[in-house]
Amino acid sequence: MALLVQKFGGTSVGTTERIEAVAERICRFRREGHDLVIVVSAMSGETNRLIGLANAIMEEPTPREMDVLVSTGEQVTIALLCMALHKRGCDARSYTGSQVRIVTDSAHTKARIKQIDEENMRADLNAGRVVVVAGFQGIDERGSITTLGRGGSDTTAVALAAALKADECQIYTDVDGVYTTDPRVVEKARRLDRITFEEMIEMASLGSKVLQIRSVEFAGKYNVPLRVLSSFGEGEGTLITLEDDTIMEQPVVSGIAFNRDEAKLTISGVPDTPGVALRILKPVSDANIEVDMIVQNVGADGHTDFTFTVHRNDFKRAREVLDGVARELGAREVTGDNKTVKVSIVGVGMRSHAGVATRMFEALSNEGINIQMISTSEIKISVVIDEKYLELAVRALHTAFDLDKPEAEA
Amino acid sequence: MALLVQKFGGTSVGTTERIEAVAERICRFRREGHDLVIVVSAMSGETNRLIGLANAIMEEPTPREMDVLVSTGEQVTIALLCMALHKRGCDARSYTGSQVRIVTDSAHTKARIKQIDEENMRADLNAGRVVVVAGFQGIDERGSITTLGRGGSDTTAVALAAALKADECQIYTDVDGVYTTDPRVVEKARRLDRITFEEMIEMASLGSKVLQIRSVEFAGKYNVPLRVLSSFGEGEGTLITLEDDTIMEQPVVSGIAFNRDEAKLTISGVPDTPGVALRILKPVSDANIEVDMIVQNVGADGHTDFTFTVHRNDFKRAREVLDGVARELGAREVTGDNKTVKVSIVGVGMRSHAGVATRMFEALSNEGINIQMISTSEIKISVVIDEKYLELAVRALHTAFDLDKPEAEA
Repeated sequence: MALLVQKFGGTSVGTTERIEAVAERICRFRREGHDLVIVVSAMSGETNRLIGLANAIMEEPTPREMDVLVSTGEQVTIALLCMALHKRGCDARSYTGSQVRIVTDSAHTKARIKQIDEENMRADLNAGRVVVVAGFQGIDERGSITTLGRGGSDTTAVALAAALKADECQIYTDVDGVYTTDPRVVEKARRLDRITFEEMIEMASLGSKVLQIRSVEFAGKYNVPLRVLSSFGEGEGTLITLEDDTIMEQPVVSGIAFNRDEAKLTISGVPDTPGVALRILKPVSDANIEVDMIVQNVGADGHTDFTFTVHRNDFKRAREVLDGVARELGAREVTGDNKTVKVSIVGVGMRSHAGVATRMFEALSNEGINIQMISTSEIKISVVIDEKYLELAVRALHTAFDLDKPEAEA
Repeated sequence: MALLVQKFGGTSVGTTERIEAVAERICRFRREGHDLVIVVSAMSGETNRLIGLANAIMEEPTPREMDVLVSTGEQVTIALLCMALHKRGCDARSYTGSQVRIVTDSAHTKARIKQIDEENMRADLNAGRVVVVAGFQGIDERGSITTLGRGGSDTTAVALAAALKADECQIYTDVDGVYTTDPRVVEKARRLDRITFEEMIEMASLGSKVLQIRSVEFAGKYNVPLRVLSSFGEGEGTLITLEDDTIMEQPVVSGIAFNRDEAKLTISGVPDTPGVALRILKPVSDANIEVDMIVQNVGADGHTDFTFTVHRNDFKRAREVLDGVARELGAREVTGDNKTVKVSIVGVGMRSHAGVATRMFEALSNEGINIQMISTSEIKISVVIDEKYLELAVRALHTAFDLDKPEAEA
């Protein structure tokens, strides 16, 4: 009999029928004897409807009032879900973020949780009630309603699990877990039973959009076991935890992530002087363009080449900015390519294994795939390649790192 | 420069365009230097949409969760109105019932206000901000969201005006004031500049559905000057206050009210014994039928006749109940008529004037209208007549009590 925090997203509670299905599932868990805190999002479409109303009045609505407005979305869901639970004879009580109290800073529309008062929830749990909490929202110290930003319901769930020292935080989504790679690209991709927080963060930031990165970081920081499961099907999902010391050997690579939206820009023949990286990147960041990978080679004859990647949508604008920078710095030329992709291997096991990079480059070379950029971190190696090789590269790496086989054998 | 509480109902804020029009009007008052507290309802249709969602799940939704659900309606409006004010450069801040704090008892869906904390509002007013408050809602001592029942936004406005000792509470509606009678029935009906709380209560309960009775009672109790005005047009509306001692002579009758929904039931030849009224009315009230007028004549030979009126919708059911009662009591017969109406004259002036009833009966008799029932109170005389005489009776009384003339001459 565990204390579980379960989060159901907007699609899972998108209609009153689906809310009833979620209630049915919750009742089943309750009958099994678990203590339950449920976090829900707004019904799908509702947040956009509310934003539409605001935009009809004001192009950039005042953030404080925007939070007052959109926080009603989750408030509707908690009430309806409690009704559906009551209908099934399951005692339950709803809480808005302010009622819990989930205290945040005052950064409206992107607030951060500072403190959670778990006393009321604890009293309800002790009385045998299911506690239903509105995700995504809190209250600041002045008593103003705040929201945590899109996807913030995952963060609410993790934060509640941490405050209550729950046994597990379960995120119900429309996928049944985290996969070794995208099953649409590699047929043999398989669901991982476990993955570490660090790996999940690298997988998530690389485009496996199962969970909000922030909520995974949060879970890692407070060591909250996090599980991703399907709202619609059954199954154990994927458990995200700290490194598991009970397993003698971690797999070297846990998954292959990729990102189709990379565009590459190079400024060549830049004078190799201190501060040149700043002089190149500051105008880009001032134009609100996010930079992903950055690579600078050691230069020859006092000059160097500087390459970075941006989202494809920002390619044209970044190139314009860079042309200006090149004139200013007296650089030789600016070149760009928006037909590139990034492929990464991720795994905590690679820390203790030499030759992982070699194995990766060998696998790509065997397929005749040219590597345009390389970037590495503790538990990740990323390469930029021509977009036409994406599927081939991912499949080759999936095989090379033994991910095709069932987990037990890998 | 006054402190005004202004309330705008669901129709006045029914679309984002109308919310902008309300904002425009508020800005004008602000520029004139008034301090403003604005109370708003849910956008028209929104409360019904939310109730529809609840009913899709549960026929009789749990009251606590119903309040969590429907209170989102006003929360949406306060946010949108503040945005519309900000767009116009008018500083404003929104408050839910719980943020104000409007403390109520825990009678969910029909809670009563116990206490209002005006500190936050006062601070905003002092800082030159317009305060925008969600009507209809509060919070109980346990921190649960409550609502005051349909039309409760009027009550919120009056309660805030009382707490803030506002100079006036202005209720914006779709009529431009309180009339001597329904202008659709009497062409010469005219808007009253003033009316007393007592008169307004009698007028309201008799079918002039301009204001919630409860809010008028509240305003009377705390002596909050209440003004009814049009949301769409201009004009001074009608001021509802205590009796005005500065006017030497109150008009004898201030208005003619009527109710088309009256149905009459008589049980004849009932043994005239103590407790017989209870034995007749208890089964009716147990069937959840509301009784309006009750008349019992002094009986002859130990028997009496007992007549009362109910809403026409309840006529059939009331008759069935009464048939059972008649058998039990050994009454002679039950008769009924659902083609009746009630017409009333209302005025605080009649307290000090003899002969008001005589003048009323004479006016009706002159038109050949038969009076079926009579009932009187301190400031009201009501008669039940055949429905076909309704318009004739109202017009005759409007003339007989000098209401056709402009107020100055009356």
